[in-house]
Amino acid sequence: MTNRLSYLGPKGTYSEQAAIQYDNSAILVARSTIPLAADAINSDAADEAIVPIENSLGGAVVETLDLLIHQSGLLIKNEIALPIRHCLMASPGTERSEIRKIYSHPQSLSQCRQYLSRHFPECQLVASLSNSAAVEEMNGDRYSAAIAGSRAAALYNANILEENVEDNPTNATRFVVLSKNDHYPTGTDKTSICFEFHDDAPGILVTALGEFSSKGINLNKIESRPNRLVLGRYIFLVDIDGHRSDDIVRETLSAVEGHVSSMKILGSYPKQISSSI
Amino acid sequence: MTNRLSYLGPKGTYSEQAAIQYDNSAILVARSTIPLAADAINSDAADEAIVPIENSLGGAVVETLDLLIHQSGLLIKNEIALPIRHCLMASPGTERSEIRKIYSHPQSLSQCRQYLSRHFPECQLVASLSNSAAVEEMNGDRYSAAIAGSRAAALYNANILEENVEDNPTNATRFVVLSKNDHYPTGTDKTSICFEFHDDAPGILVTALGEFSSKGINLNKIESRPNRLVLGRYIFLVDIDGHRSDDIVRETLSAVEGHVSSMKILGSYPKQISSSI
Repeated sequence: MTNRLSYLGPKGTYSEQAAIQYDNSAILVARSTIPLAADAINSDAADEAIVPIENSLGGAVVETLDLLIHQSGLLIKNEIALPIRHCLMASPGTERSEIRKIYSHPQSLSQCRQYLSRHFPECQLVASLSNSAAVEEMNGDRYSAAIAGSRAAALYNANILEENVEDNPTNATRFVVLSKNDHYPTGTDKTSICFEFHDDAPGILVTALGEFSSKGINLNKIESRPNRLVLGRYIFLVDIDGHRSDDIVRETLSAVEGHVSSMKILGSYPKQISSSI
Repeated sequence: MTNRLSYLGPKGTYSEQAAIQYDNSAILVARSTIPLAADAINSDAADEAIVPIENSLGGAVVETLDLLIHQSGLLIKNEIALPIRHCLMASPGTERSEIRKIYSHPQSLSQCRQYLSRHFPECQLVASLSNSAAVEEMNGDRYSAAIAGSRAAALYNANILEENVEDNPTNATRFVVLSKNDHYPTGTDKTSICFEFHDDAPGILVTALGEFSSKGINLNKIESRPNRLVLGRYIFLVDIDGHRSDDIVRETLSAVEGHVSSMKILGSYPKQISSSI
């Protein structure tokens, strides 16, 4: 059966590019927010959802982390990395020298800040709710341009004036695929978990993380999120090597549970992006 | 001499509120970006800069972390926490029932998403580059409103229709004060550092953090930032108890340096917000 894959729309966003890269035969289901993309699975409008979780420049996508921590019974089934290549685009016929206004999402504008101040120091920068919306808004205005991905240019028939206008060429976003079930073991897997500690327990983070290192389980990343109750209290998200069905992973997670006030397994899935800390 | 304090403008933002809360006798110097607020010190337009570093809902302010990690020789001299209270405001005379468009920064719109979909499900949401800009843009349009802090309402003569429209009442932002020198020891201090590891070294994070716990030095927080070269490689930011001039802190930081590829002390300052992990 064809996979129904929900994503953070509208069409023409980097999320749609990621969805196509992950499964180019899927039926794509656009939703206007990250929680709604996940909800599409619960309401049986989709089998899987693909959502951004981390950008190499912007850091964590907090809506996705909070969804995994607080709101969703969904599990991470896969991950993919998409290089982000911003393009400057305008309506056909518009010359670079005519541009007076540049539309984009504030995050994309800030990722191109040096480029914009070098090449378009006099232009007015206008905020949009998404990169796709920016292209729609600039469309038809002869004196404006937008910054978005190449897919948005194709979709709205805009003319790409320059590619790769981001200040940092290593801009990439990691997406996770959510589903009711995570992935079966493949032998090269990763498991994401989150946990929280009881109030003020000095040294407890090192003790908990020490359970992994003493068993030789590699950490891939650690992220902290404010717990949304008190500034200065955190929930930790950790990616470790191995599948949650592996004996050593199961035993170690039990040991970690002895140190924390609550723990949630967010899913096991094939490891596409690797590091060791 | 009166302190000259730069901040992330324009006037009417939460950053201006934080600047006034930190030093209400200072001469305030508005700058349009976080890096420019810091640069005001280097060009002797300001003595100190106050910039947001963390929001209890939105997480880290990555521009400030990256400034501290990569670009600035400035040190953290102080920290303060500001509760964020979003207000719905409109031009005098506009009734709630007349509102058709609501302007705000995308982050503020998302922090009020439940409120907006409950009370204004039909309204068009419009992105602005700052909350202050939102109030300026809605000004004079009888059928529009903006979401911003109370200070923006006072400044632009807008009428507050409802206070505390944020979905989560624990919304607070932590700001840091940057300067050429950090703070002298007060006896209750915090030190912020960042460090990076050599390529792939399993267990190294636990080993490095273990230096603090074995000396009884409390960790307040840990944050990871992509290193901007490779997705999956991180720089760690850690806040510890104590002043960098304390003997035990100095010795421990030397020991940590033995495990990392590079380390930077970001400053020591009086501890206003506390936790232990």
